[in-house]
Amino acid sequence: MKDIDLSQIKTPADIRNMSLPELNELAAKMRATLIDKLAAHGGHIGPNLGMVEAVIALHYVFDTPEDKIVFDVSHQTYPHKMLTGRMQAFTDPEHYDDVTGYTNPAESPFDLFSLGHTSSAVSLAAGLAKARDLRGGHENVVAVIGDGSLSGGVAFEGLDYGATLGTNFIVVVNDNQMSIAENHGGIYADLRLLRHSNGTAEPNLFRSMGYGYRYVNYGNDLRSLIEMFSSVKDVDHPVVVHINTMKGMGLPAAEADKEAYHYGGPFDKTTGAPLHEDNPDTAPIDYSEFFARLMMKYMADDPSVVTITAGTPGAIGFGPERRRQAGRQFIDVAIAEQTAVDVASGLAKGGMKPVVGVVSTFLQRAYDQVSQDIALNRQPATLAIMYGSMFGMNDETHLGFFDIALLSNIPSLIYLAPTCKEEYEAMLKWSINQTEHPVVVRAPGFLAVSDPSVELLEDYSEPRYEIVRRGGNVALIGAGSMFSVMKKAAELLAKDGVDVTLINPRNLSALDTETLDALRDYKLLITAEDGIVDGGYGQKVASYLGEAPVKVVNLGLPKEFLNKFNATELQKQCGMTPEQIAETVQKSLK
Amino acid sequence: MKDIDLSQIKTPADIRNMSLPELNELAAKMRATLIDKLAAHGGHIGPNLGMVEAVIALHYVFDTPEDKIVFDVSHQTYPHKMLTGRMQAFTDPEHYDDVTGYTNPAESPFDLFSLGHTSSAVSLAAGLAKARDLRGGHENVVAVIGDGSLSGGVAFEGLDYGATLGTNFIVVVNDNQMSIAENHGGIYADLRLLRHSNGTAEPNLFRSMGYGYRYVNYGNDLRSLIEMFSSVKDVDHPVVVHINTMKGMGLPAAEADKEAYHYGGPFDKTTGAPLHEDNPDTAPIDYSEFFARLMMKYMADDPSVVTITAGTPGAIGFGPERRRQAGRQFIDVAIAEQTAVDVASGLAKGGMKPVVGVVSTFLQRAYDQVSQDIALNRQPATLAIMYGSMFGMNDETHLGFFDIALLSNIPSLIYLAPTCKEEYEAMLKWSINQTEHPVVVRAPGFLAVSDPSVELLEDYSEPRYEIVRRGGNVALIGAGSMFSVMKKAAELLAKDGVDVTLINPRNLSALDTETLDALRDYKLLITAEDGIVDGGYGQKVASYLGEAPVKVVNLGLPKEFLNKFNATELQKQCGMTPEQIAETVQKSLK
Repeated sequence: MKDIDLSQIKTPADIRNMSLPELNELAAKMRATLIDKLAAHGGHIGPNLGMVEAVIALHYVFDTPEDKIVFDVSHQTYPHKMLTGRMQAFTDPEHYDDVTGYTNPAESPFDLFSLGHTSSAVSLAAGLAKARDLRGGHENVVAVIGDGSLSGGVAFEGLDYGATLGTNFIVVVNDNQMSIAENHGGIYADLRLLRHSNGTAEPNLFRSMGYGYRYVNYGNDLRSLIEMFSSVKDVDHPVVVHINTMKGMGLPAAEADKEAYHYGGPFDKTTGAPLHEDNPDTAPIDYSEFFARLMMKYMADDPSVVTITAGTPGAIGFGPERRRQAGRQFIDVAIAEQTAVDVASGLAKGGMKPVVGVVSTFLQRAYDQVSQDIALNRQPATLAIMYGSMFGMNDETHLGFFDIALLSNIPSLIYLAPTCKEEYEAMLKWSINQTEHPVVVRAPGFLAVSDPSVELLEDYSEPRYEIVRRGGNVALIGAGSMFSVMKKAAELLAKDGVDVTLINPRNLSALDTETLDALRDYKLLITAEDGIVDGGYGQKVASYLGEAPVKVVNLGLPKEFLNKFNATELQKQCGMTPEQIAETVQKSLK
Repeated sequence: MKDIDLSQIKTPADIRNMSLPELNELAAKMRATLIDKLAAHGGHIGPNLGMVEAVIALHYVFDTPEDKIVFDVSHQTYPHKMLTGRMQAFTDPEHYDDVTGYTNPAESPFDLFSLGHTSSAVSLAAGLAKARDLRGGHENVVAVIGDGSLSGGVAFEGLDYGATLGTNFIVVVNDNQMSIAENHGGIYADLRLLRHSNGTAEPNLFRSMGYGYRYVNYGNDLRSLIEMFSSVKDVDHPVVVHINTMKGMGLPAAEADKEAYHYGGPFDKTTGAPLHEDNPDTAPIDYSEFFARLMMKYMADDPSVVTITAGTPGAIGFGPERRRQAGRQFIDVAIAEQTAVDVASGLAKGGMKPVVGVVSTFLQRAYDQVSQDIALNRQPATLAIMYGSMFGMNDETHLGFFDIALLSNIPSLIYLAPTCKEEYEAMLKWSINQTEHPVVVRAPGFLAVSDPSVELLEDYSEPRYEIVRRGGNVALIGAGSMFSVMKKAAELLAKDGVDVTLINPRNLSALDTETLDALRDYKLLITAEDGIVDGGYGQKVASYLGEAPVKVVNLGLPKEFLNKFNATELQKQCGMTPEQIAETVQKSLK
């Protein structure tokens, strides 16, 4: 047996002549290396530690990249990256940032898609398998999907369609008995039954959908995995390989608290204790936390208030203790945004006051339900959007700056963009307690900011802009998180003796035409929003004032899938710093 | 036994004291009445004829409206409307148009939601059930969903979540062995197995998801249905009642050709033969037919071209004969738009040339997949949109005028709006054969129109406007189907001695800034598009020219869920007739 040198592994071919003991050593070294990087750098902890052996076995058995493996969500692909030419990004701290946290074809031909939303891998792989069959090819096509991702509708759709292929199609179900938090849904009882019967029980979800079915009880045992994958390699029909793995394996803290260690920042690699933990009494709170505190109060005060998540309770501030306290008033429908929105519609129809707390980029998975079942049906549900901002997640699969364009153009839906904590609370409270309108309330950025001077309303159903200051012939309209930027720009200009009109529009889905009409003969009007310009709020203003003398400038983000950008730099590139805006105004006055 | 007088049935309470023979007579009379109306008026034929007995049994057994019934898609609710106060709309030809073809709360408190997209009923009903439980209520909650709708992702999500309720929740699966066309998917083998075993077989999809399961083999037999529904009334846990019904029952032609009689226009009620059938040699063809003819040619010429539908082959011109001819190059993934888009992504990645033919209003169900798996991944798939127009379907649940705003704001997706057959063909052909861009090609309205004068390009990747005529200081930009309107306006103006610039923009997702820059000092620029103004094409132009002297007017539709509108009237209300546009120009010149 040779001593394994990770730096010598450049492609999966480099592991295919290893003996089982060598592979086991490889797994141990990879896991230790992963823990080192995760401890220093943070990232998806549990998903990757649990999949070290399975990924090794897949690349050992299948002839990648000729054989195709599509990893669902792809947040479990650190081991895959280690085996496919990117080992240095895990062994060398100076290269930690060489790779993203997801598969990305720009990084490697072993990465088939840029993926970050769950549940799509089975359908994507079915397309690859169909292409193979039409071409007359013979490669294996493998989709790897977690038990948590199975709850997403497109995963079921893909399983349903994939079963009809009639040719080689292998779905590896990585069952670590967890979603991001605990699983919810009828299928999880079946998965449990299958695990407890060593895969022999009926009913069997996968058989019922038309798949051959195999079970691996020790999904972190390389020998079992290699034997199983070898047995299905070149199979001539669709088959599910259900593997039982340990999320967080090798890091005791992660094995013990799977939710806390799904994703995390740097930690002490011995104890798992987070480094740089903020003092909860003094640390600034983010809008997820602020939202959760408000909702706990509203739910305690009114038993008809209900908080809903689609599998991401942590992202909306609902850790295990709050979920326990909220009891029946907190619903996790599992990763199933369409159903989260439809359950909210049903709850509203049934007289409840539902609030869906949801990350901006994930709500787009339920556009049809928002449009048809909430907006068209005028159900007074609240959609509380988190991370709807350039100052949030910055992976190209998790962008938070499309939701204004996506949602503000849906009829009858009121899109509110508060500018600070005080306004957020007023809008959320109004939305929950009114009974006529479907409402979006977007959290204004990441950290909760205070502005006691904001004018609060009792009723946000009609678009009414707040005119915060009145000036000469220039108006600045700052939407949501961009209001504070516009305010600073106005202050800079005031110092230079230029008084501008400063407006908080509050509502991004309808125009306060009375206020806008009063600006028709201004020299310049600038709008700024924390989202793409195309399809957004500012363009509505530009269109409305298209025949007026006033010049209109719409500031916002470019329509691009940006990746790993620096938000502060981006703001500057978009001409959206206070200084740049003040300068734009000064130029226009010359 | 009393003679049944349909006109005396005002509410379901009026049938609850009937004997079984009376109910059978009721069913016979309702079916005959339905056939009369359908023969004279058209509508959803098969779905309603198959559900007469089940709907009677549901209202007989359950205490509606206290008990809640949510009908999926709700195109099978004509019998429900007959029993809930709207009988006259079926018995009296003068009142045929009093009701829409779907449930609608504006019509009746027995209609819980306005529904027209499939697969959402289970999740909506789960929300109602949860509201009941939180309230401490005791009513039954019933979702009625067809086998064809089960393939939609949100239906699986809803089943998965509904199974966890732990309280009364009844899902009636109306299995008529058909989607709109034939079913596709692994679950249909299981449904067949269940039917052939009188409900006793394993595997059982519903049991695997955690439901109690009951089967009714004679789903058009009132006695069986009443017994079964009575046995599950007030059940204390989630249960599926699987009923085997005959789509089109009572109209032999509809029983024999279920696809042709899913939805249809007036027909001879004895033979079922369509009235007013067009002469196929002389009738004008629509874009679905034109698309299908082109695709048949492309597929025959190139084995890598693939046409994909999500359960609506007829809507894209693919009747049974074309499907047979196209063979493996035609894929129906079932009603599962998310998977249709993802399979296209996988096919493109695998070197194929996939084209998803899809109705505008249904593509919105796959927004996330279009954004993430097609656009972000830059897969050269083509999305061919049908009925993307105000001149198409006009039910509030099936509107075709939101797709420009929805899709043109997705990065890297090229949205093409051809103006006529010739341009449609050129754009579709370019899109299929290029390998770099995700592309939308929107059919220009309903009937295929010819304009041999249109300038065709070899390459549509860059936004390049066609300047069709050059005039003084007014420019008209007509997008897609609105181009011909603008052209007529320009001709009217020319007759009055006013020469305007007329532009076909071709591309609605990016601006030809060179062409637009040349219009900066014009007096007036008018854009018109066959979609809502908000978030659409014209607003991009208004924003881009926001600082230019030219006045910009954006014509298009209001952001509203219009229902049963007259498209010609709507066009006029929006100021979009050639005469109105010419007048707008004349006024601006004064």
